[in-house]
Amino acid sequence: MNHYCYKCFDCKTQFSIEEIEPNLHYLCPQCGKVELNQPLKGVLLIEYDYSSLKKQLNKQDFMKLPVGQFWHYPQLLPLNFRNQSGQFIYEKIVSSQLNRLSLIDHPLVEYEFEDRKIYFFDDTRNPTLSYKDRASSLVALKALQSEISDISVASTGNAASSLAGICARLGLNAHIFVPASIPEEKLIQIQSLGASIYLVDGNYDQAFDLCVEISKIKGWYNRNTAFNPLTIEGKKSAAYDLFISMKGDLPDLIFVPVGDGVIISGIYKGLWELLQLGWIEMMPRLITVQAEGSDSLIRYLKTGQFEYKTPTTIADSISAGAPRNLYMAAYAVKESVGEALVVSDHEILNAQKILAQQMGWLVEPAAAASFAGYLKFKEKILDKEKALIMLTGNGLKDVRALKRWNVIPISHTFEEWRKIFEEIPKSK
Amino acid sequence: MNHYCYKCFDCKTQFSIEEIEPNLHYLCPQCGKVELNQPLKGVLLIEYDYSSLKKQLNKQDFMKLPVGQFWHYPQLLPLNFRNQSGQFIYEKIVSSQLNRLSLIDHPLVEYEFEDRKIYFFDDTRNPTLSYKDRASSLVALKALQSEISDISVASTGNAASSLAGICARLGLNAHIFVPASIPEEKLIQIQSLGASIYLVDGNYDQAFDLCVEISKIKGWYNRNTAFNPLTIEGKKSAAYDLFISMKGDLPDLIFVPVGDGVIISGIYKGLWELLQLGWIEMMPRLITVQAEGSDSLIRYLKTGQFEYKTPTTIADSISAGAPRNLYMAAYAVKESVGEALVVSDHEILNAQKILAQQMGWLVEPAAAASFAGYLKFKEKILDKEKALIMLTGNGLKDVRALKRWNVIPISHTFEEWRKIFEEIPKSK
Repeated sequence: MNHYCYKCFDCKTQFSIEEIEPNLHYLCPQCGKVELNQPLKGVLLIEYDYSSLKKQLNKQDFMKLPVGQFWHYPQLLPLNFRNQSGQFIYEKIVSSQLNRLSLIDHPLVEYEFEDRKIYFFDDTRNPTLSYKDRASSLVALKALQSEISDISVASTGNAASSLAGICARLGLNAHIFVPASIPEEKLIQIQSLGASIYLVDGNYDQAFDLCVEISKIKGWYNRNTAFNPLTIEGKKSAAYDLFISMKGDLPDLIFVPVGDGVIISGIYKGLWELLQLGWIEMMPRLITVQAEGSDSLIRYLKTGQFEYKTPTTIADSISAGAPRNLYMAAYAVKESVGEALVVSDHEILNAQKILAQQMGWLVEPAAAASFAGYLKFKEKILDKEKALIMLTGNGLKDVRALKRWNVIPISHTFEEWRKIFEEIPKSK
Repeated sequence: MNHYCYKCFDCKTQFSIEEIEPNLHYLCPQCGKVELNQPLKGVLLIEYDYSSLKKQLNKQDFMKLPVGQFWHYPQLLPLNFRNQSGQFIYEKIVSSQLNRLSLIDHPLVEYEFEDRKIYFFDDTRNPTLSYKDRASSLVALKALQSEISDISVASTGNAASSLAGICARLGLNAHIFVPASIPEEKLIQIQSLGASIYLVDGNYDQAFDLCVEISKIKGWYNRNTAFNPLTIEGKKSAAYDLFISMKGDLPDLIFVPVGDGVIISGIYKGLWELLQLGWIEMMPRLITVQAEGSDSLIRYLKTGQFEYKTPTTIADSISAGAPRNLYMAAYAVKESVGEALVVSDHEILNAQKILAQQMGWLVEPAAAASFAGYLKFKEKILDKEKALIMLTGNGLKDVRALKRWNVIPISHTFEEWRKIFEEIPKSK
């Protein structure tokens, strides 16, 4: 008995597990298309039988589940670790590994900022220090279930280091396709984690296509973002973690940094499911934040047209000329009555500085973008509204960005410092 | 009513809180001494009334406490947030801040490695990604209790970024004294977190002394490691977290990387307290691991003599010519019937590689040192013995070390890769 099926986001055709999984299909068999410098067509969504789940699952019990361990709700995951009588034995089969995949368990942190309480969702301390671990973990568990030992991905950063780290934790092989222009620092991180790296003389789009092609030849399971529907499904777990952390009382606005559009699609999917289950009454508004130099989604929302532009932003994790999950991301913003905000690199670095110096969070520029969006939008937030900011990646992943706004101070000898301090009046 | 007192580790004199805290004393008022390139004399230990605690605290209840939140056992902490009737109201007073300090909650991870189950204690995902957050958090909470807004530290790395991060999270000011030769990358991390940095033309020892002197003049609370007894006390929390995580069934051997000797002293202190409380019956053996080029403790254990040697090792976090807490660390090794192991930089990098590639952990060289010690010692471990390896800092803190064993692969064009893959037979 199947507890889920696939449905094409574009043509709405439904497919059974048997039609998709055994052949390693990813996009819709009818309308799916990968094109250079274009968003994907025919991205698949995974759907469950919500009316039956509504009877099976209990909101109060669900809220007692541990945060950061999505395997505690196998009914809402596209995995099939079951025993002969059809019961989920997910945990039992992979139990020794699961502890290695635990995400952060207390992602919710409050701050008083400019006389207002704001909420942060801190995904910077997951196993490889980014939100991407949510997708990589689910994809890796799917590979275990399918007895596939090799997983591939095209990426320029976090998705790659995340897949490399998660694969190493589970004893799987990671194959990473990256443009040869990737910063050496990022390459070293990925490589250190034991992944096989294929450097492509070309851009991310070419790496993406090459990964699709070679994975097919080699029989590797492909984790390309949005292309593999489990990436969206893994990323929805943040919505559930938020639901549990906030005891069901969700924020009114969620600020989400957007590149390929999979995180915002995943959060939307999770929230939408919570609505289907009848556990929340209102969909929070999803506020998409993009960098000025990588604003395809925002332009698409305005004009209804997609136009490729070479992306240029310091926030490399949301740098995407052709957001692969553009259409679903746009849908998430519109359906949630959200907003679309553009922030400049200068605003991103400023937000990064405030997060670090006033709140003690070293986050990467892409994560700071969502706070930059908050800073831009805050006047429009009503007093009674709760705002939550998604922090998606650790600042140590990109030390060079930090160098942009730090100036090395002058050094002095022991004696010179003594003199300097004697001349400064005591602070209190 | 005081629930703790101070006791000099060297001369064994006891002091009340009133004799130590109001005057910001750190070392023993009778025999304490800070000397250039020498271990500290008169380090203070904090002692509680264990026979009374034995009646107050219940082992089973204790084991239900959340891991990574040491404030849940205020009776065992040198803090005094109390209400008028003398009850601890620790959590209530600083509750909004405490969520920002939560350490990793599932530090214990098992692996099968070479047909043997081994345990890791993962402290690489604390708020600033190192073990040092345990000490910084406790010191910062003490500053809050004492209504001191400024905390200082001399350091070359993790202790500094940890203090900077924790201070930013709690709205306190951090003052960091570092040798001017500190790698720019580390400096940027510390500086980004909003700390005031005082670059000293000199070595760590001079920075240490300057920090002591200036802090006194300015009235700053000094977090210098070992010098401030709360650093040991904060670091003992790992023993309690381990106790809870392992449901009281502690490992037989614990591998600990040692530089200044405060982590091993803290772990010993925590374990010793568990013995006093009657909650464990045996002290695990503490296996100290030092780098070849920074092996003062091991030489001291052999000869009974301390001799200063300029340290040289890739593992900067355990690079210490004069371990400030030498005598207490030596005591911990001897009393626990431990061992002392030296590992070379080559062995450290090899261990770092295995941890990354086979287990998915990117750790800094100092953390890899403890695993290098395990690899060296493993033949002597009995089948029935459980070994635990402490991982004390994240690998992204020191990307340059990773460059030592990674070689950037050759890049190819899309078409070249196609050809290469066509020529390789399918993997399965």
